[in-house]
Amino acid sequence: MSGLPFDDFRELIRSMPGPDEASVDAVRARNAQLTKPQGSLGRLEDLAEWLAAWQRVERPAVRHPMVSIFAASHGVAAKGVSAFPVEVNFQMVANFTTGGAAINQLCKSYNYGLKVFELALEVPTPDITEEDAFDEAGCAATMAFGMESVAGGTDLLMLGEMGIGNTTVAAAIYHALYGGEAADWIGRGTGVDDAGLTRKRDAVAAAVTRLGKGERDGLEVLRRVGGREIAAMAGAIIAARHQNIPVVVDGYVVTAAAAVLHALDPHSIDHVQIAHASVEGAHRDVIARLGKEAIVDLGFRLGEGTGAAIAGSIIRAAADVHAGMATFAEAGVANKG
Amino acid sequence: MSGLPFDDFRELIRSMPGPDEASVDAVRARNAQLTKPQGSLGRLEDLAEWLAAWQRVERPAVRHPMVSIFAASHGVAAKGVSAFPVEVNFQMVANFTTGGAAINQLCKSYNYGLKVFELALEVPTPDITEEDAFDEAGCAATMAFGMESVAGGTDLLMLGEMGIGNTTVAAAIYHALYGGEAADWIGRGTGVDDAGLTRKRDAVAAAVTRLGKGERDGLEVLRRVGGREIAAMAGAIIAARHQNIPVVVDGYVVTAAAAVLHALDPHSIDHVQIAHASVEGAHRDVIARLGKEAIVDLGFRLGEGTGAAIAGSIIRAAADVHAGMATFAEAGVANKG
Repeated sequence: MSGLPFDDFRELIRSMPGPDEASVDAVRARNAQLTKPQGSLGRLEDLAEWLAAWQRVERPAVRHPMVSIFAASHGVAAKGVSAFPVEVNFQMVANFTTGGAAINQLCKSYNYGLKVFELALEVPTPDITEEDAFDEAGCAATMAFGMESVAGGTDLLMLGEMGIGNTTVAAAIYHALYGGEAADWIGRGTGVDDAGLTRKRDAVAAAVTRLGKGERDGLEVLRRVGGREIAAMAGAIIAARHQNIPVVVDGYVVTAAAAVLHALDPHSIDHVQIAHASVEGAHRDVIARLGKEAIVDLGFRLGEGTGAAIAGSIIRAAADVHAGMATFAEAGVANKG
Repeated sequence: MSGLPFDDFRELIRSMPGPDEASVDAVRARNAQLTKPQGSLGRLEDLAEWLAAWQRVERPAVRHPMVSIFAASHGVAAKGVSAFPVEVNFQMVANFTTGGAAINQLCKSYNYGLKVFELALEVPTPDITEEDAFDEAGCAATMAFGMESVAGGTDLLMLGEMGIGNTTVAAAIYHALYGGEAADWIGRGTGVDDAGLTRKRDAVAAAVTRLGKGERDGLEVLRRVGGREIAAMAGAIIAARHQNIPVVVDGYVVTAAAAVLHALDPHSIDHVQIAHASVEGAHRDVIARLGKEAIVDLGFRLGEGTGAAIAGSIIRAAADVHAGMATFAEAGVANKG
């Protein structure tokens, strides 16, 4: 990376490829011939087109799906905003490694690859109620790490996270980007009590008050009130676009990485699906602001990429159905009378 | 079967086992120890309890999931209620057999077994606008066939259907059971045009007018305005309960089989999940009347068990997550502070 770090990312966003319309047309033409009433598989048909647009192939496929989890520590956790102690960050990363977490079971159930990226867990980012999470070089370096994490070889990237305190950080990002009151953007995260919820609201308000009034740049919001996993996932989303890899973001926290990019350019997340609508209250509002629709709504509020894993299997099914079905002509089935 | 056929079925419903509360308690106790905030996997946690209740085991598992499709022909199709000609029944059954249909791809994608049951396709049931679909012996025999279809060896039964004209039949069942106007219960099925929709409304109204006023018995509604696939699936749902096999019903048409049983005894479908909310308008209302909540909402209106296949994989994931996760103690993870 050369020049001003954030400028490099702005250029990477400006230079993102658009959808491959020829591949979308090919999917649409084949879809019209498949042995089912057109449109009768609803979202599955849309997802096949979306895969074609961003994999840039006429016959999209999900053969090497990958869940990538980014784990980070947050100074703001010291403000008592979470139901769980901070050492859980280390313990859950160990749990991922030994295969005991929910996401491990889902990856086994759905036959996905799983990678876990620790982002300097032992060094929390500064408490965002008091100071910026990063300087520009630090934020850019973390985004670059996220870019590097998108190794070749996957054809559907599912993003998840782990980080005690990170629903507070995500809420601060949403409040900074979308305004309103701090209370509008918070929820109980992993299950904080009423007193914790009040502390969380105050932390979000204090973090965003530090930003002052006026226009807010997505990368500056990320740098000042964000966190490492969110910065890394923003980098991963950018890199995936340049590598023709569609992305599924999990829930409330991962969506914040998409929201930062969306604030820079709404089209920068056209290759991104929102996996599920979180129990975390504001998530539905954020999804609507991003012009998206969640794939499932199962009352999840865990993170780890658990929602992304469920939604990813539906996206894979969309590819499998599109690729494998017979046409009316092949099957000798009469089309609409 | 001996005695009056329907009486045997009424007895099979009366003698259905209730939920295995001890297994539910065991799942609940283990769930509270798993390395995630309690409740954070929402519906997945509920589904694990539901599986335990009806598989009657403390550690539920979905190792042999099975999609069963029931295909039938309907005299009412001659009334021009469908967008597709009736020969599609035969062609689609052939397509299932050679592996070209949407459900075949989903069964491959999710590694499910698939069975297709043809119900005398060459002999449509009488046009329900003019006469009863069955006499009592015929309806009972078809239900018995459906019971027999539930072979041992599956631990999650997903029900699907194929039958040109059967959304008209399902609409007649709903209109007969729940009242209102015929127009309240119809939709475009596989894509009928405005004139076809009017014919469909008139057919549903005519079929239900034949029933006269007054109390309506679920089995009598099935017999008089139903169809073979719906009768067989009602039998399959009953048999599954007695064999400790949880059931996933697909969409608008399969739900009619559950609705018939629900009218006889609301608890008779406690072992049944509704897979998805169909585009077919009235389905959401029916789901609410059954006291259920669909697992996914993906804009499907195909049938074949396609929605059940998607939902089934989420139910299997629920079992896998519950069985495989580490406890806080096993993983050395701190619980809530």
